[in-house]
Amino acid sequence: MNIANESWRSIWIEDGGNSIGVIDQTQLPHVFRTCSLSNCEEIVNAITKMVVRGAPLIGVAGAYGLMLALKDDPSDENLNRSFDYLNSARPTAVNLEWALNRILGKVKDIDPKDRAHAAQLEANLIAEEDVAICESIGDNGLNILKRLAKRKSISFPGEPLNVLTHCNAGWLATVDWGTALSPIYKAHRAGMNLHVWVDETRPRNQGASLTAFELGCEGIPHTVIADNAGGHLMQRRLVDLVLVGSDRTTRRGDVCNKIGTYLKALAARENNVPFYVALPFSTIDWSIEDGLAEIPIEIRSGKEVTHIQGRMDSHLNGSAINSIQLTPNGTEAFNPAFDVTPASLVSALITDRGVINPSSSELNNLLIKS
Amino acid sequence: MNIANESWRSIWIEDGGNSIGVIDQTQLPHVFRTCSLSNCEEIVNAITKMVVRGAPLIGVAGAYGLMLALKDDPSDENLNRSFDYLNSARPTAVNLEWALNRILGKVKDIDPKDRAHAAQLEANLIAEEDVAICESIGDNGLNILKRLAKRKSISFPGEPLNVLTHCNAGWLATVDWGTALSPIYKAHRAGMNLHVWVDETRPRNQGASLTAFELGCEGIPHTVIADNAGGHLMQRRLVDLVLVGSDRTTRRGDVCNKIGTYLKALAARENNVPFYVALPFSTIDWSIEDGLAEIPIEIRSGKEVTHIQGRMDSHLNGSAINSIQLTPNGTEAFNPAFDVTPASLVSALITDRGVINPSSSELNNLLIKS
Repeated sequence: MNIANESWRSIWIEDGGNSIGVIDQTQLPHVFRTCSLSNCEEIVNAITKMVVRGAPLIGVAGAYGLMLALKDDPSDENLNRSFDYLNSARPTAVNLEWALNRILGKVKDIDPKDRAHAAQLEANLIAEEDVAICESIGDNGLNILKRLAKRKSISFPGEPLNVLTHCNAGWLATVDWGTALSPIYKAHRAGMNLHVWVDETRPRNQGASLTAFELGCEGIPHTVIADNAGGHLMQRRLVDLVLVGSDRTTRRGDVCNKIGTYLKALAARENNVPFYVALPFSTIDWSIEDGLAEIPIEIRSGKEVTHIQGRMDSHLNGSAINSIQLTPNGTEAFNPAFDVTPASLVSALITDRGVINPSSSELNNLLIKS
Repeated sequence: MNIANESWRSIWIEDGGNSIGVIDQTQLPHVFRTCSLSNCEEIVNAITKMVVRGAPLIGVAGAYGLMLALKDDPSDENLNRSFDYLNSARPTAVNLEWALNRILGKVKDIDPKDRAHAAQLEANLIAEEDVAICESIGDNGLNILKRLAKRKSISFPGEPLNVLTHCNAGWLATVDWGTALSPIYKAHRAGMNLHVWVDETRPRNQGASLTAFELGCEGIPHTVIADNAGGHLMQRRLVDLVLVGSDRTTRRGDVCNKIGTYLKALAARENNVPFYVALPFSTIDWSIEDGLAEIPIEIRSGKEVTHIQGRMDSHLNGSAINSIQLTPNGTEAFNPAFDVTPASLVSALITDRGVINPSSSELNNLLIKS
């Protein structure tokens, strides 16, 4: 995708594979800065501190992290230790473990001296596959957007199709294209008249910062709203569909995504607004059925709620990024990072392998076909 | 209520009625500062800029504003002009017009030279009545909290009753006691084991700033959460009831309250969590039935979404209050300040005249009895 008319990906190999380049997502949208990560520990830190974030990107970053670990020390002991270390960086996304297992499968039974090279080839492959997967999600979702736009044009000719999205499931969360935003990019490039309501997505404001940044770079009309506003907009028929990503989806179609997604799904059902979830096939966790009972929810620091980061709005301080405190001194905050939307609230799952209803049988068919 | 163990109200008469004292709520919780408002224009500014906010307090402030206007010029022309000027300060709250009409009724048919004095007496009366009304809401709501606490103690002895509240419907939004927080203050003073989940309430963060401040001053256990978290907490049985205020309630019980209230009401119904609305009888608008169709929703500046104010978290800058920008430069934001929760989602209305079901017939009975 584009930043200032230059084509970028969210992660790349540098220095002949001795380090990994990423965009520092903690500084966006105010400062565009890249980082070089040259060992496993730096990859873990980048994931934990959300310099890189988004389930698919975390998976790719983790794969490169294991590659860097094997460059340092290709022993079995280091392989296992680094696997566990990387895998513990974020608990909710299933891609991380999935990507690490792909590397492990390629390297565990070969000569340690060949491991780093094999890991690099496999990590590159995962990254390229992610681009292809996200582009397929975009193509599959585009058909839905086209259908909805056609229907809307009958009653409201000339009006844009209004999509509401939560968090950032754009190309910054993947290697390129994104998941929930991929159909939007496809639709925009196909000339469709679109407008995106961007939930700011407290507490980390990935919507207000990253999604708004992405859509702005691509020139797609969008409006940021407080997370509280979505229900009101749906009551007023100002939302034609909700389109979000998923960090983990169970085999019956329960969806674990950024905290607050569930509230939008409830409002969508209540107001007959279709609610779509875009996800790579690889983020389906076939080992679990009941999302509410079985998905561990990451609890992050309360400081993400009590404090917020942005660009100083003061002439004295230039354009420095700063953090401010929102609550009285010493106030406790609780910060669950994800919630679970039951399959019953989801209109359809948009995957790289097709669009399906969120039911055990349709998911199972998708698995069998693949 | 208490601030640093000193008893305060949110509004008071100063200088023999020549000015009105208020707490500057735009500076809380970081700076405690009072303001003197000495003419009608300063009252309008204080309402518009939310130095004073909360439907009941706006009503009292408006009444004092009309008194100040009549001190300057008691003519019919100024009376009518000032009425309209004050009444336009915030469009959603019904208390403002209600309080202004009470003053108008007392002064319109008397000698202009007696008007300011009559207005002062009536405004004082409105303020004192508000305190009594809020205390009654507290007593009526306390019975509900006691019943829920008793039920909870059977299955979960020793565990606190978990109340979720949205925005600030505390004493800062009224003259004293508050509406939604009044039962909580009563319960705490009665020794009940309570814990309050405080929605931060974007975009203006009245929960994170004002409700957390109020509860902290009274020593009531509370935890601030992102507005996105409430659905997840209800799914996990971590909320025993939702208790919110209302800026305007229709004659069938539709409730207009701070944006985001509707989303919590949907989650409460879905998870069998009782959803209570505490309100003064005076905020019921008998002229309208359908809240969604008939209540004008105030659209505030998008800058309240794209920027946020807090205390600088930097040693270089001491404890100055500053504003930071959250979105990319030039990003559009849409900022509806209220939403409407249909009566069907409300378990009961807690008023100063009793607790009733949100139905046309029960509301009508309440009106007839009064």
